Amino acid sequence: MNASNSLKIDLYELTMAAGYFQNKVDARATFELSCHTMPENRSYLVACGLEQIVEYILNLRFAEEDIAFLKTLPVFRHVQRGFFDYLKDFKFSGDVRAMPEGEIFFAREPIVQVEAPIIEAQILETCVLSLMNIESVVAAKAARVVAAARADGVARGVIDFGSRRAHGPEAGVLAARAAYIGGCLGTSNIYAGRQFGIPVYGTMAHSWVEAFDAEGEAFEKYYAVFPENTVLLVDTYDTVGCVRKVVKMPLRERLKGVRLDSGDLKTLSKKVRAVLNKAGLPHVKILASGNLNEYKIAELVKAKAPIDLFGVGTDMATSRDCPALDLTYKLVQIQGKNGMIKYKSKTSPQKKTIPGKKQVFRQYDKKGIFVKDTIGLASEDAPAGTRPLLRPVIRAGELIAPPPSIEAVREAAAAKFAQLPSGFKDIYKEQSVKIGYTKTIARLAP
Amino acid sequence: MNASNSLKIDLYELTMAAGYFQNKVDARATFELSCHTMPENRSYLVACGLEQIVEYILNLRFAEEDIAFLKTLPVFRHVQRGFFDYLKDFKFSGDVRAMPEGEIFFAREPIVQVEAPIIEAQILETCVLSLMNIESVVAAKAARVVAAARADGVARGVIDFGSRRAHGPEAGVLAARAAYIGGCLGTSNIYAGRQFGIPVYGTMAHSWVEAFDAEGEAFEKYYAVFPENTVLLVDTYDTVGCVRKVVKMPLRERLKGVRLDSGDLKTLSKKVRAVLNKAGLPHVKILASGNLNEYKIAELVKAKAPIDLFGVGTDMATSRDCPALDLTYKLVQIQGKNGMIKYKSKTSPQKKTIPGKKQVFRQYDKKGIFVKDTIGLASEDAPAGTRPLLRPVIRAGELIAPPPSIEAVREAAAAKFAQLPSGFKDIYKEQSVKIGYTKTIARLAP
Repeated sequence: MNASNSLKIDLYELTMAAGYFQNKVDARATFELSCHTMPENRSYLVACGLEQIVEYILNLRFAEEDIAFLKTLPVFRHVQRGFFDYLKDFKFSGDVRAMPEGEIFFAREPIVQVEAPIIEAQILETCVLSLMNIESVVAAKAARVVAAARADGVARGVIDFGSRRAHGPEAGVLAARAAYIGGCLGTSNIYAGRQFGIPVYGTMAHSWVEAFDAEGEAFEKYYAVFPENTVLLVDTYDTVGCVRKVVKMPLRERLKGVRLDSGDLKTLSKKVRAVLNKAGLPHVKILASGNLNEYKIAELVKAKAPIDLFGVGTDMATSRDCPALDLTYKLVQIQGKNGMIKYKSKTSPQKKTIPGKKQVFRQYDKKGIFVKDTIGLASEDAPAGTRPLLRPVIRAGELIAPPPSIEAVREAAAAKFAQLPSGFKDIYKEQSVKIGYTKTIARLAP
Repeated sequence: MNASNSLKIDLYELTMAAGYFQNKVDARATFELSCHTMPENRSYLVACGLEQIVEYILNLRFAEEDIAFLKTLPVFRHVQRGFFDYLKDFKFSGDVRAMPEGEIFFAREPIVQVEAPIIEAQILETCVLSLMNIESVVAAKAARVVAAARADGVARGVIDFGSRRAHGPEAGVLAARAAYIGGCLGTSNIYAGRQFGIPVYGTMAHSWVEAFDAEGEAFEKYYAVFPENTVLLVDTYDTVGCVRKVVKMPLRERLKGVRLDSGDLKTLSKKVRAVLNKAGLPHVKILASGNLNEYKIAELVKAKAPIDLFGVGTDMATSRDCPALDLTYKLVQIQGKNGMIKYKSKTSPQKKTIPGKKQVFRQYDKKGIFVKDTIGLASEDAPAGTRPLLRPVIRAGELIAPPPSIEAVREAAAAKFAQLPSGFKDIYKEQSVKIGYTKTIARLAP
């Protein structure tokens, strides 16, 4: 995320900042990012986006042209010039703690904690929320889709094909990263491959097949250029008929796969598999795509459709049934001038929040299966048999350690998912989770 | 959209490009972008995003580091080096025709048409789709929300507050633009204000109110810095009690509005209005927000909730109930070497497409109300009493005219929406539209 994101934020972040500056409010404040309520159709969420928010936080600066624009806004008319000098020299000086990427989380649990002079913590709000939102929602979606593809224990692959339906070019890249962390094999997005080292996949376009006078000619011309990557799109005209022709072509010797992108995938995949097998090509893979999601994939797996790989586009990149989490970034405490902590919470109906800088303590059983979470104050000792989930990431404006590799994050996500009780992995039924509070923090609730 | 979007595309765009290059296929092809089927809960869509795709198309270049990365991908191993030289010199040389931004469109109608050597037209696919997708889907959402807010004829305003829930910082900016074109008064996103000249709005954060020891102190401190922009967030603790205090404070003299962000907005707005009126402040506006959408707003309007302005976040910026359109970019014809047109279409079940470079002819009645659309070939004369909707935008790689101002686009969108029959403006019932085909094009259907 580049520095030019500095103004891609809500106006009130900077009016609040100006207000704090001018009123000389510089108390150290703690803000927590959490999901207020679980969305429908989700039993767990996957923390994702930390690497992007860390990059954003560490590189956030206000350029001269940013400040020049702000000065043109009538709302800043009465703001002291000193505020703009403050912005000119802005550099985050606070601390960030967070759940590692790939960790499972539930509603009401802080996943990112920012502790800094209140003006600095405030300014981060919009981008920290939007980056964590898109990546966490897509990572959870990917985990669901991959689980559906492997419901019978067969390790079928899922590839993110969503860039064309993502919310703009940047969203496509962010979604590709999250989808990979959530368990996809890779993505169609080239830039995500370059930026994050994610495997990049692609087959061929219908327009390629149509551009030639005959389907066979289109395939031969493709094979001539990509002999080692020959996955043919066979559904432009007549799927089964096409595969019958393909198995007789010379390229059959190095054919890797065929892709079905329309029609009744259950029936077609069975027919296509039969044609391939009969032709002595049992190793040729079948890739299916076309408006797929976890439910359609689960049905295909249940019906024993012989599909090896699924390409998932729109539902993956937009998390179509749940395109946003109810993520909030809440002030939970302020350190007063005398060093005393002032706990902060909203008391308005339906929006009551528990104050205090928190920690999430997770408990597993002897087999390593998730049992419950306990939310306590960060200053408390971990209850017996639990592990704290939030870890320091940035201290006094400096990164504590380089982020883990994306492979490590992806493996961690898979391991954490494996530790969920089976009920949580059911894509049809929502499971509610046991979350307790320590006595200390329960006493602070409004 | 900056040049660094060059690789934020599906891998197959560039494998197809390499395939065309190496096979010396350079026929002039026409691709059309259209929405395959109307989404549920939508009776019309709003064309939006043309300015961004034009900028993308005209500035698309492949930098040396882009090409260096492509060369590392195993899939390009057998590709001739000449292809990479081609990419190094890439500059779009074709034509683009499109519906003007703000135009109403329906399923199956081309909204953008790209005619160029097939390799150039192919490469544009991913970003053209994703940019048109996010902006068109949000513009239609905004039109619905604004219609709901004005269902009783009162011109209530709607403001986009969605940046924190958008799919990353860039998506927040794109959504803000589309929301403004769709009828919003403005956005909370500062960058959208700077980039597009959209009015920027903001109130205050709950954390601001909580940062001080008393609500009254928070308001006074805010007022001292922003005396001309005093819209107070009154729902942090006890909404009505808060307003009772506010109307007795000195800042009441210049108070502009109060914002309710939680609770039963119908009841609270009535109570708050009564307190304000009784205190002699009938001009102070009430702004409501908090997970609003067109349905909740319609209920509030129906219940005569005295709300003057609505802030809409998640539902606006993600078009939550429909976060993606079924937009496709289809090859419809190729010009053969002899100048003959070869019509192209898919014939696979459920995905049949009508070939040929098209035009959409729109018919209005004498009162200027939309009657029906007729899809024909671009080469046909407009049927009597109709107007063609697709207009040239880029010719031989050059922009024909500067894009209209965003104000002009927003006004055009409002005018086009006003010309819809009232049934189409009903947010509850889907209306199906009359779309005909000319005899000439009907003969080309597969």
